[in-house]
Amino acid sequence: MAVQLAHRGRSLLSELAKCATPTAARFLHRHPTEMTLLEMLGSTNLRRSTPEDYRILREIVKSFERYSGVGNDIQLTLPERSANELIMIEKKREYEKGIMDPSKFAPGHHIFQVLHTVKQSPLFQVLRKMPKGAALKTHDTSMCSSRAVIEMTYRENLWVCTTHKGCRVVEFRFAKEKPKDLRHEDGEWQPMEKLRELRGEENLRKYLRVRLSMYPLASFTTNALAWRHMMGIFNLLDGLLQYAPLWGDYYYNALKEFYADGVQYLEVRSVLPELYCLDGSRLPKRETVQIYMDSLKRFKQEHPGFIDSKLIYAPIRHVQPEVVGQYVKECTELNKEFPNFVVGFDLVGQEDKGHPLSKFAEELLKLPEHINFYFHAGQTNWYGSHVDQNLLDAIVLGTKRISHGYTITKHPILMRLAKYLNIALEVCPVSNQVLQLGSDYRSHPAATLIAENVPMVVSSGNPGFWRAAPLSHDFYMAFLGIAPMTADLKFLKRTAKNSIRYSSLKDEGKAEAMEKWKKEWDKWVAKIVAEKDQALEDKK
Amino acid sequence: MAVQLAHRGRSLLSELAKCATPTAARFLHRHPTEMTLLEMLGSTNLRRSTPEDYRILREIVKSFERYSGVGNDIQLTLPERSANELIMIEKKREYEKGIMDPSKFAPGHHIFQVLHTVKQSPLFQVLRKMPKGAALKTHDTSMCSSRAVIEMTYRENLWVCTTHKGCRVVEFRFAKEKPKDLRHEDGEWQPMEKLRELRGEENLRKYLRVRLSMYPLASFTTNALAWRHMMGIFNLLDGLLQYAPLWGDYYYNALKEFYADGVQYLEVRSVLPELYCLDGSRLPKRETVQIYMDSLKRFKQEHPGFIDSKLIYAPIRHVQPEVVGQYVKECTELNKEFPNFVVGFDLVGQEDKGHPLSKFAEELLKLPEHINFYFHAGQTNWYGSHVDQNLLDAIVLGTKRISHGYTITKHPILMRLAKYLNIALEVCPVSNQVLQLGSDYRSHPAATLIAENVPMVVSSGNPGFWRAAPLSHDFYMAFLGIAPMTADLKFLKRTAKNSIRYSSLKDEGKAEAMEKWKKEWDKWVAKIVAEKDQALEDKK
Repeated sequence: MAVQLAHRGRSLLSELAKCATPTAARFLHRHPTEMTLLEMLGSTNLRRSTPEDYRILREIVKSFERYSGVGNDIQLTLPERSANELIMIEKKREYEKGIMDPSKFAPGHHIFQVLHTVKQSPLFQVLRKMPKGAALKTHDTSMCSSRAVIEMTYRENLWVCTTHKGCRVVEFRFAKEKPKDLRHEDGEWQPMEKLRELRGEENLRKYLRVRLSMYPLASFTTNALAWRHMMGIFNLLDGLLQYAPLWGDYYYNALKEFYADGVQYLEVRSVLPELYCLDGSRLPKRETVQIYMDSLKRFKQEHPGFIDSKLIYAPIRHVQPEVVGQYVKECTELNKEFPNFVVGFDLVGQEDKGHPLSKFAEELLKLPEHINFYFHAGQTNWYGSHVDQNLLDAIVLGTKRISHGYTITKHPILMRLAKYLNIALEVCPVSNQVLQLGSDYRSHPAATLIAENVPMVVSSGNPGFWRAAPLSHDFYMAFLGIAPMTADLKFLKRTAKNSIRYSSLKDEGKAEAMEKWKKEWDKWVAKIVAEKDQALEDKK
Repeated sequence: MAVQLAHRGRSLLSELAKCATPTAARFLHRHPTEMTLLEMLGSTNLRRSTPEDYRILREIVKSFERYSGVGNDIQLTLPERSANELIMIEKKREYEKGIMDPSKFAPGHHIFQVLHTVKQSPLFQVLRKMPKGAALKTHDTSMCSSRAVIEMTYRENLWVCTTHKGCRVVEFRFAKEKPKDLRHEDGEWQPMEKLRELRGEENLRKYLRVRLSMYPLASFTTNALAWRHMMGIFNLLDGLLQYAPLWGDYYYNALKEFYADGVQYLEVRSVLPELYCLDGSRLPKRETVQIYMDSLKRFKQEHPGFIDSKLIYAPIRHVQPEVVGQYVKECTELNKEFPNFVVGFDLVGQEDKGHPLSKFAEELLKLPEHINFYFHAGQTNWYGSHVDQNLLDAIVLGTKRISHGYTITKHPILMRLAKYLNIALEVCPVSNQVLQLGSDYRSHPAATLIAENVPMVVSSGNPGFWRAAPLSHDFYMAFLGIAPMTADLKFLKRTAKNSIRYSSLKDEGKAEAMEKWKKEWDKWVAKIVAEKDQALEDKK
């Protein structure tokens, strides 16, 4: 290595050699006029390294890596360091067990196969209680557990349409009298109580639990079939949840479930359906928003630790550009009426179908600047397809966040733009697996985002459909399966803080939110430390 | 968008607007003092874009992408452009069929399930005949088809050891008399002819075809089990192929099979076993090399279009550092004796086991500088493990290429170093799938290497074990499954040329090799064009 480096950098290296290792990189950062890592290595014949040169260089590169990933900017407090020790013991236990026998490593499997094992993992238990900040990607009717949804089928005046001689539930409807229209061949309407009697309460609950989830189909042959199945659940839920008196309760229950999972702030993407009443009449969209706001107000009164919730108007994308023009107008109107609640715009539904974002650009650009875009984009593995290109359009259209962006690591320029323009990616590990974009969390592209320190938050998507915790399973898979083995509490803290940083809250709102989150965070850390100390005490 | 940009870049944008689109990026490249893409977009409020601003910006970013991927530096000739049209028609046909029905897209499946479909694909047929340049990653006893290996079991004096009452073949041995040692419990030696009679020739061939491959196990539960199975094949082959009179024939046949698959140059990683004779005596390693050279000489005489072949000494990595010290000495000696043939050093075997490269650094650095390192590294999905760290060590130790480097996209700094130091990655798509690192080619990390234009070559590894063509299946999966839909003949040409560029040939050797390759390439292009013209003619 000596030769050229001797002239340019021997003194640098010897100073580095004197430093404690992590300082080596800091030294280079502090002396930007000195040669960069690339220059240093490039002007060097590495084959002439002495073993000492080799060790120093190795440490320099390693510390460059250490200082560039997500969380590198976080300084842990003393209690946090203590909690971190315990978290890393649990993490390493699972990791090393996995290296010994990869079949035992939960993130190497489909979530459906390891849901129960994960629930028993001490690491998961710790993460479950972790104050996670915000859940920035949720969808209006897939937030609640199926348990909660099944409870809702006990409401009065519910009718159910079945096919296959009562075997398959295809539609719900609240009505005073038996509905007359039949949208399903060979469908039959009956009161829900009657079906319950007929099939037996426990049996019907079990059936609905499967019917309202993607289980047991861990493996669909394609992403398209997984989508079809998922849309089937959404469709079935419409008749149940779009009943005006239920809509608010569903949302209230979602806030409750997320809050119990360590989430203090929610942004909900809603198609804002026109809700129906018992007589079949429909209410205008503004009523749907009003119901949201009323439920939120009630929830916040009853849960002072909760921060807030906002709404992103996110209608279905499978339409003509003119319709997007109408969406934009609706969003503008709703924002005028509910300026602190309806704060963003997106389009939802399987990206592969219908038009790409570029077709809607002209209409989209009419949205007033103060209403943010939070586009779904790049939820695909078709590299070079129009879905893949949505990523480019989302960015050029000025999106504030990207939902999924699964394909972004195949577009380094877009990845750099996201970093430069401070656009956060909403990474949804479990959703990506269930919708067949990847099978092993260790191959999830977000590993590159983490290494590159591209803004990202951990989100869940439709956790109700995969029986996952509102956000904890996604954090578990991201922390253990996607991030490097060395990612620790700094990673978790940065990710939690990011969720507030990249929320649609205004600056003052963010400061307040951070405070509320910090209070919970400190309590959580203190509790880990106390339990650890207690365990040590017990051992004595 | 206007506001700030108006001051800094309105004139730039208007000049851009006048350009044909691809020129926009070139303009920015030609005017490096002008604001960069990042600066331009960063100083811009994209939400204030007019539809025209949006379209221009979109095209600028797109053309940046177009000019940064692998192959962007290639200018196609007129005949190449014509051939490219046909290739892209076939590629798009498969791609679009796949988007319509993803279950029909070959790169979405395990190669074992689509081997026959792929063989019938017109795109594959074109790629099969493509002059691919060099195969830079091959292993001594996994290069030939099992058909060829089975032929070798017809040689005289071959004994076979079976267990389970003749049902399982566990060892081969050439000997005058029945071997006396038994390394397998319940093993029995018998002449190969006798086993053939006993089980029936056709049956035994069928059995061996399975026994000598990873089939039918498309899915092992873990990477470790896949490795164990593969090592079982290597072990079985030892007794057969390490017979001195056969070793050269195997290599000769490998050259023949690769050459027929469009490969004109091979670098073979060999453990250089001490070959045995009929009386059981062992020859020194230098004889193994001599046999290679004699066979190569014969092959080159008989195939003047073939370029050359070189050897990388690559003993097993599961040893103590002292042993690596001996390896290094052996390699130095062999290189002295065969300076134009033994040109590189590597260590092989499952990286997860034994010591990481860092443990061997001191010994490795003793290898004379003119013998190159071509390290295996990062063939794992354990991010942050010691296998993952081998990547760092390979680079800091001054490797010229990296075999696999599967995990490199999780290390952007190392990826940048590889690019800066001109270290090529040997990407082996099919091997990675069979050894359970990924299941869908569309998720292969090499997509990022392609987008970032990190030096890479397409390689195969152990094609004989997965019944794949020597290199064509890897090219097919890389071209259709990993690269973007838009990657075309420019990508293929750059990848083929890279294989010579990153070979261990000296500069003059490379120039000569390029010439020999170019001759075949032009013939191939001309043939595609002629067939296309003929087809058009026939239609009239």
